[in-house]
Amino acid sequence: MDFKKYITDVPNFPKEGVVFKDITTLLNDPEAFKAVIDEMSQFVKEQGATAIVAPEARGFVFASAIAYVTGTKFVLVRKPGKLPRKTNEVEYTLEYGTSKLQMQQGDLTPNDKVVIVDDILATGGTIDAIIELIDKEHAEIVGIEFLADITELHDKELEKKYKVKSLINY
Amino acid sequence: MDFKKYITDVPNFPKEGVVFKDITTLLNDPEAFKAVIDEMSQFVKEQGATAIVAPEARGFVFASAIAYVTGTKFVLVRKPGKLPRKTNEVEYTLEYGTSKLQMQQGDLTPNDKVVIVDDILATGGTIDAIIELIDKEHAEIVGIEFLADITELHDKELEKKYKVKSLINY
Repeated sequence: MDFKKYITDVPNFPKEGVVFKDITTLLNDPEAFKAVIDEMSQFVKEQGATAIVAPEARGFVFASAIAYVTGTKFVLVRKPGKLPRKTNEVEYTLEYGTSKLQMQQGDLTPNDKVVIVDDILATGGTIDAIIELIDKEHAEIVGIEFLADITELHDKELEKKYKVKSLINY
Repeated sequence: MDFKKYITDVPNFPKEGVVFKDITTLLNDPEAFKAVIDEMSQFVKEQGATAIVAPEARGFVFASAIAYVTGTKFVLVRKPGKLPRKTNEVEYTLEYGTSKLQMQQGDLTPNDKVVIVDDILATGGTIDAIIELIDKEHAEIVGIEFLADITELHDKELEKKYKVKSLINY
């Protein structure tokens, strides 16, 4: 299936000059969504993962169904103030300023084999923060996967260190 | 399955005096998560739904897997500034102040039969806003379902008007 046709380019969103990759057209097509989830789940199974880690909110849109299909734990990465139990926190750099992400302590164990799931790989800042959060729990990262990779926005460091898969490449 | 034992009470979160219902313990147990999704999906099938509508971010945690299982469209309700195409917007009241939710125009059609999915029914403010957003698209609401219902926090108006299901009742 040609997944690219289910992603809509929305020019000048969220600001002038940016072309936003809109995944909602994919979500509105049950057959295409199922094909995406099945292919992303296949990668998780091939890596022998025990857990999926995904950031809010669009990461959840894929991770939930993948966790269901693969029978893995589903661990949330969220903005501060959302996760109720004791968390680790990592600050990361955005285009302007910084942001923070949290993951609860003990949601992962050192025995877990983790696949990180998100919708789009752009600059990779979010993923670097998630890797740091997983490393704090001493779990093993066995793969990272995205619906789509915008290759011009990041270097190749991630692929050098980890098994990375994207269904769509821009 | 006794789903209640997979929800953890976290006292004094997000503030003093509030007992937070923590769903992350459920997400960390693949067997329990699968059972929840299967039961929530069964309700969606029984209503003959063509679409699931869910609010970010915890609504997505259940809606994604349910949309996958039931083969329904998955329509996102989000905070302002997140959805790229033209939206409708509804303002709703929180304990202190107000907030806004958006849904894209055209994600639902007047032919759609919708089940709204969220994790917890508390005061019902979010659900009222979502109903208003769906009504603007003239789609039919055939059901509303939650993982858990905290009955003392809301009146019975929702159940009078709609078919409402919760897997857990507090």
